[in-house]
Amino acid sequence: MSVILEMSIFPMDKGMSVSPYVARALGIIRASGLEHRLGPMGTCIEGQWDEVMAVAGDCLRDLQQDCERVYLNMKLDWRRGGDGRLDAKPAAVLDKLGG
Amino acid sequence: MSVILEMSIFPMDKGMSVSPYVARALGIIRASGLEHRLGPMGTCIEGQWDEVMAVAGDCLRDLQQDCERVYLNMKLDWRRGGDGRLDAKPAAVLDKLGG
Amino acid sequence: MSVILEMSIFPMDKGMSVSPYVARALGIIRASGLEHRLGPMGTCIEGQWDEVMAVAGDCLRDLQQDCERVYLNMKLDWRRGGDGRLDAKPAAVLDKLGG
Amino acid sequence: MSVILEMSIFPMDKGMSVSPYVARALGIIRASGLEHRLGPMGTCIEGQWDEVMAVAGDCLRDLQQDCERVYLNMKLDWRRGGDGRLDAKPAAVLDKLGG
Repeated sequence: MSVILEMSIFPMDKGMSVSPYVARALGIIRASGLEHRLGPMGTCIEGQWDEVMAVAGDCLRDLQQDCERVYLNMKLDWRRGGDGRLDAKPAAVLDKLGG
Repeated sequence: MSVILEMSIFPMDKGMSVSPYVARALGIIRASGLEHRLGPMGTCIEGQWDEVMAVAGDCLRDLQQDCERVYLNMKLDWRRGGDGRLDAKPAAVLDKLGG
Repeated sequence: MSVILEMSIFPMDKGMSVSPYVARALGIIRASGLEHRLGPMGTCIEGQWDEVMAVAGDCLRDLQQDCERVYLNMKLDWRRGGDGRLDAKPAAVLDKLGG
Repeated sequence: MSVILEMSIFPMDKGMSVSPYVARALGIIRASGLEHRLGPMGTCIEGQWDEVMAVAGDCLRDLQQDCERVYLNMKLDWRRGGDGRLDAKPAAVLDKLGG
């Protein structure tokens, strides 16, 4: 029974250009092998609770190495029997709109 | 000076299948003419503060017509001089990762 | 028909100590006269949609004067007929727990 | 090195009155022994990453027993050397405002 986790993570002490840190987090997400989608304001990851939270924790620990303050925003959607929803959810919305 | 607003909106009194309501919100976002990207956990919209918040308000008012409780999640990123960032932000992250 | 808006706002280019900026935002919230509750991770404000979003916009514009990048996190709960919920919501939860 | 986690959790398939479910989550948070503050839109918990995320997972698993869909919203703030910040953070903001 998988969940979708959307996460955004960035340091608060490194100035306004945080993409190098976001890239490190995305590298960790990629290395996890979990399905994910990068977006303008965060990355959605699908997997079991333990899997996706382990990835989020790895991202935080990575940034803790050289950052003094880190902000992490997450929202999570669990639905019984729901799998493969990273594409199915937006597809269902578009379908209702007539494509 | 545009902002990026990520928003997720859904009724809390209509059961677990909320895509018809999300589709109505997406229809309103489309009709606004503002640049946007639909994702698995929300939609990102780029525009001036007044423009994007007017769209969010229109979505809420639309759902208020036939819903008893509505939840709206938003995160917003403003950067001086930042425009056209819906694609530029993820591109900058991928670039740091080597594509 | 009032809403509850929880908002957190901070600059991303001013280093890790952002409380002076959060204080400016809280000053604007206070000056609005709207009911609010300051918490460890954000401030909850109760009022009409137009009222609470005007306050959020005022906070953003205030920080835009001397910040280069600002992050704003919001979640909003609307319930038909719901007023005076800043205290009623946590009270209902505590009541279910037996106080 | 503790974090502050703000979490809101509720079922999406149980209608608009979700306080019984929020109360179950709060009971789990209380039983953890971690410092926490209940607010109008969520509960802030302070502890180590592993501790606070274990509590969030326990809350999700509890609701999964009798809910079909659950939404979980989290934001997390980590600061090096930061402990006892549940009261210190709002106090610092009020201090900047002159109380």
